[in-house]
Amino acid sequence: MNQFGRLLRLSIFGESHGPAVGVTLDGLPAGLALPEEDFIADLERRKGGQQKGTTPRQEEDRPQFLSGLFNGKTTGAPLTMIFPNSNTRSADYEKIRAFPRPGHADLVAAQKFGGHEDYRGGGHFSGRLTVCLVAAGVIAKKLLRGIAVEARILEIGGEPDIDKGLQRAIDAKDSVGGIVECRVQGLPPGAGGPFFDSVESLLAHAAFSIPAIKGIEFGAGFAAARMFGLEHNDAILNAEGQTRTNHAGGVTGGISTGNELVFRVAVKPTSSTPKEQTSWNRETGSVEAFSVKGRHDLCIALRVPPVLEAVTALVLADLLLQEQKIPNIIS
Amino acid sequence: MNQFGRLLRLSIFGESHGPAVGVTLDGLPAGLALPEEDFIADLERRKGGQQKGTTPRQEEDRPQFLSGLFNGKTTGAPLTMIFPNSNTRSADYEKIRAFPRPGHADLVAAQKFGGHEDYRGGGHFSGRLTVCLVAAGVIAKKLLRGIAVEARILEIGGEPDIDKGLQRAIDAKDSVGGIVECRVQGLPPGAGGPFFDSVESLLAHAAFSIPAIKGIEFGAGFAAARMFGLEHNDAILNAEGQTRTNHAGGVTGGISTGNELVFRVAVKPTSSTPKEQTSWNRETGSVEAFSVKGRHDLCIALRVPPVLEAVTALVLADLLLQEQKIPNIIS
Amino acid sequence: MNQFGRLLRLSIFGESHGPAVGVTLDGLPAGLALPEEDFIADLERRKGGQQKGTTPRQEEDRPQFLSGLFNGKTTGAPLTMIFPNSNTRSADYEKIRAFPRPGHADLVAAQKFGGHEDYRGGGHFSGRLTVCLVAAGVIAKKLLRGIAVEARILEIGGEPDIDKGLQRAIDAKDSVGGIVECRVQGLPPGAGGPFFDSVESLLAHAAFSIPAIKGIEFGAGFAAARMFGLEHNDAILNAEGQTRTNHAGGVTGGISTGNELVFRVAVKPTSSTPKEQTSWNRETGSVEAFSVKGRHDLCIALRVPPVLEAVTALVLADLLLQEQKIPNIIS
Amino acid sequence: MNQFGRLLRLSIFGESHGPAVGVTLDGLPAGLALPEEDFIADLERRKGGQQKGTTPRQEEDRPQFLSGLFNGKTTGAPLTMIFPNSNTRSADYEKIRAFPRPGHADLVAAQKFGGHEDYRGGGHFSGRLTVCLVAAGVIAKKLLRGIAVEARILEIGGEPDIDKGLQRAIDAKDSVGGIVECRVQGLPPGAGGPFFDSVESLLAHAAFSIPAIKGIEFGAGFAAARMFGLEHNDAILNAEGQTRTNHAGGVTGGISTGNELVFRVAVKPTSSTPKEQTSWNRETGSVEAFSVKGRHDLCIALRVPPVLEAVTALVLADLLLQEQKIPNIIS
Repeated sequence: MNQFGRLLRLSIFGESHGPAVGVTLDGLPAGLALPEEDFIADLERRKGGQQKGTTPRQEEDRPQFLSGLFNGKTTGAPLTMIFPNSNTRSADYEKIRAFPRPGHADLVAAQKFGGHEDYRGGGHFSGRLTVCLVAAGVIAKKLLRGIAVEARILEIGGEPDIDKGLQRAIDAKDSVGGIVECRVQGLPPGAGGPFFDSVESLLAHAAFSIPAIKGIEFGAGFAAARMFGLEHNDAILNAEGQTRTNHAGGVTGGISTGNELVFRVAVKPTSSTPKEQTSWNRETGSVEAFSVKGRHDLCIALRVPPVLEAVTALVLADLLLQEQKIPNIIS
Repeated sequence: MNQFGRLLRLSIFGESHGPAVGVTLDGLPAGLALPEEDFIADLERRKGGQQKGTTPRQEEDRPQFLSGLFNGKTTGAPLTMIFPNSNTRSADYEKIRAFPRPGHADLVAAQKFGGHEDYRGGGHFSGRLTVCLVAAGVIAKKLLRGIAVEARILEIGGEPDIDKGLQRAIDAKDSVGGIVECRVQGLPPGAGGPFFDSVESLLAHAAFSIPAIKGIEFGAGFAAARMFGLEHNDAILNAEGQTRTNHAGGVTGGISTGNELVFRVAVKPTSSTPKEQTSWNRETGSVEAFSVKGRHDLCIALRVPPVLEAVTALVLADLLLQEQKIPNIIS
Repeated sequence: MNQFGRLLRLSIFGESHGPAVGVTLDGLPAGLALPEEDFIADLERRKGGQQKGTTPRQEEDRPQFLSGLFNGKTTGAPLTMIFPNSNTRSADYEKIRAFPRPGHADLVAAQKFGGHEDYRGGGHFSGRLTVCLVAAGVIAKKLLRGIAVEARILEIGGEPDIDKGLQRAIDAKDSVGGIVECRVQGLPPGAGGPFFDSVESLLAHAAFSIPAIKGIEFGAGFAAARMFGLEHNDAILNAEGQTRTNHAGGVTGGISTGNELVFRVAVKPTSSTPKEQTSWNRETGSVEAFSVKGRHDLCIALRVPPVLEAVTALVLADLLLQEQKIPNIIS
Repeated sequence: MNQFGRLLRLSIFGESHGPAVGVTLDGLPAGLALPEEDFIADLERRKGGQQKGTTPRQEEDRPQFLSGLFNGKTTGAPLTMIFPNSNTRSADYEKIRAFPRPGHADLVAAQKFGGHEDYRGGGHFSGRLTVCLVAAGVIAKKLLRGIAVEARILEIGGEPDIDKGLQRAIDAKDSVGGIVECRVQGLPPGAGGPFFDSVESLLAHAAFSIPAIKGIEFGAGFAAARMFGLEHNDAILNAEGQTRTNHAGGVTGGISTGNELVFRVAVKPTSSTPKEQTSWNRETGSVEAFSVKGRHDLCIALRVPPVLEAVTALVLADLLLQEQKIPNIIS
């Protein structure tokens, strides 16, 4: 299913080489102003082409509103944005169809959908759909008044110096992965709950819906597994729940503590590496060497921060609507 | 919300010191035999008291079936199991109520629920509720014919030798965390989907509903962030999708590949350490030293494997029902 | 699925002759006082035995709280109530098992669940489960402060004089149906929405979950189909939306108007009529005459009003939580 | 919320005078051929203009596929169709904005959404959105192989002779309502369940999402309330569940019996009657006479049959997917 959320319901659709990708957001409060320019910053951050290491494919990437907007503000009805696909070169992909690309969904999609999937450019599995998440996230961030959601790259190719990490990829004629950290300041205590509505459960659910993410950890995360209890525990300082340290990453018992929310995700190296690789050839039935042509990112992690911010903002906005901390009408 | 699943719907309830904890499973196929003895092994694995490092609290921990079972088999109606709480010593907890325990939900629960929460022994936030997950998991495993779900401890207190890790805790008079790995063999390709129904999204959602888990990674996980693309890619060997390596951990594009499913979780050290710690005192309003009395685990990670297996089995059974690979009537 | 609701989630379980029937309510605000005596009135209204025409089966029918209640108030955790089944005479049903009873689910349940269903007394299909709905409704009504939900019988066996209608059944040695009307006063405007969250959609969904209901109409209902537009339209009198007439029954565009909510349901005659009837005999394979023994209602409609009020209150409480008109903490 | 369904998820969006209305269907099996011509018949049936009594507004009403279709077949990814709004005359509506139209959502929408709603032509509340339901229904019908879903008008303005009923409206210079019946042949036994997933609950939920519907009844429906039990009971004839009569309308215990599914809905008269009516004037604050200009149907019930078929097919397809009676891949 391509839907997520309880009160703020997200629904995404589209394929890399179809007419458009798009997103419907249902449950949005009415009265929220959505000037187009407010979408530019995050959409540009997500776009390939600016940074060394990201793909040269350039879509205009401005949302076209099909519904839910009137006089520049949300109406309370479902808001649908689409992003037409204008710059697609399907031929690149046709040539290499014989080889299901390792790391991509080519083969599993064919198995699951009986060969009916749109395989061009990854089809519905394409990272192209993250433009929908980012645009929806811009709206969600607006609902989070006084709350700052910021993701940044911690390391690329194992290097905290990003340029160095990318250079490793360039030198090796290969791709690299990276680690991205997200921090949220100003989140009030009380969002989430124990068990299936824990902040960690919902954020992890949303984060793993971003292609290429293979791990997530909150606060001290995996390092916590090697700490003593006293070392890990965050001493509580006052009635507001402020703590001396923040090894919990801002979530205890599945509920936000009011301290900074901190988590990190691991992004695998781009699967479409420039290097020659091997895969099973559908046509010959044997395992052979091949190369992925087409336009690709040296390091997909570079594009993850605005996407991670987006899904984080969507999850938190949904939780704060449930907490009645975001009103149904914005004024 | 304390519910999870699409076709196989789980709903849990109960508090550590209330009359009982329990679980309702809706959407179960009819005709599945559930002899009581089949629950024993996993429930015993979860129970404290056998192992050095786990709490001496001993509940009988056998499911009482309130509904959904007839002539020893599931009926297709919701199946409810309860576990009465017989062995509770509430007084232990009353004494220390002045101090919201660091690492526990005491303070956030009070904030969120306006002081109405059942605070005895962690109330609804208690690890006691994982008995419900384990029992539900026993049933889910039965639906996964030919599929083996097995979790094991990789390290305790940073040590692959578990006894050594526990000894570190005992020596330090403190608690320790650990890392647990889950592997699933025999999972067919095609379960899950891209985005919000990705196998990773759903398993992570479920795993983070287990108290004390602070990180999860699939396949190479965080290490993938430091690999080159060619190094990380799993070369496809045949039409079945078998791969030479399994850095993806059995999931590509959110969909199971038919290779072994592999993921690891980080478990924080037990928050209720025997050591003296500090917290804000509700009564005096100042930060003071205190000790957590009561019965507690030296290392909660020891009890995680059957719980992790359980939620994994529940997620996979739900996905395979959706794939029509588990029939609605078992014969 | 045996679950309903978005923020206020209801989950029911149990069989007529199993250990107990029960209900879990998740998403309840914390701090709501639930003295046992507040359940008595509605539970007694639902119980058979008092009125001419209802079954002599007498259960104690007082909720046993398994979770979610602490110091007499809701905690914010899932609240589970069970009603043990003490007064069951299964033998009555065994005798007539050869004949799937017309009007009952005997045969469809056997088909759907492959013969694994609990067939005793209708099993999970039994009207016995409405005790769970009524108890949950008592809680929902408490959330609806200043709102009165009242259902009453309009006619029995076609007679507005109820005694007369029952006498028709007694004279005919048969069962009769009836019509029940529900009115809600004090419902604010703004609950619900167009399309799938319309007040009519949700109330109809809930009402048809009550066994034996075969029709529902809002306001003028079926009579509206024979009115002219001008005759049917409710002239609006002021900014609050008060209307001169109320043919819409308090809902326009799927949203509550602030006028009285009015709807009616049709209840079929009890299927277990004392009269001899015919059905296919599983054992002989031929159609034969048989009689339903056991305890049954002459007119099940008599017991519907508190059940209809209950599901109505549950739907409205959920909608008003979404409208942020019921707080998450009751004080 | 503008979403419906469990495995087959429908999400609708758009406003009468916005750029487009549209629908996303998620959970569709892959491999289903969708030639455009297969949409024409039902879309034309729904369109105004052909019949005496329906509005002259003419949209092209052919689906534009944004996603989910490849080589003419469904791919398993979400399928989005839009219907651009080309023929809108907003000025008609601006003039009469002072008067919230009785029977329409004008006032409740303004109350609920704080005046931010798109009020042009009813905005998101418009019957225009039923084109989305009909198009989705065309697809759902294709999934229901061997099952025929047919709705027809039983009466208009109280007259079984439809022309006569419309003439009554024309003579009275007013609008009229009507009754529509839906019959489904070939539905296998076993769809649905007791309580909240009853066939009646789901169909009623869906039917009331169609604007102007104010009542629904299954089988004998309201007439059942005036029957004796023996008269109403449908004698079972064989192991397949075939019955002598069909007062139940094909549903017993919430589950399809395999007999014909039969239900009727009541459609209120078009609220936008040509006659002068009265309403509160927002600008003057007093109740005054006014006339609704614009294009409107004399009898909206005429357009209901394909819409009712559509939502019926969607509900049944979802249930049969759950029953594993529709495969995930169509071949």
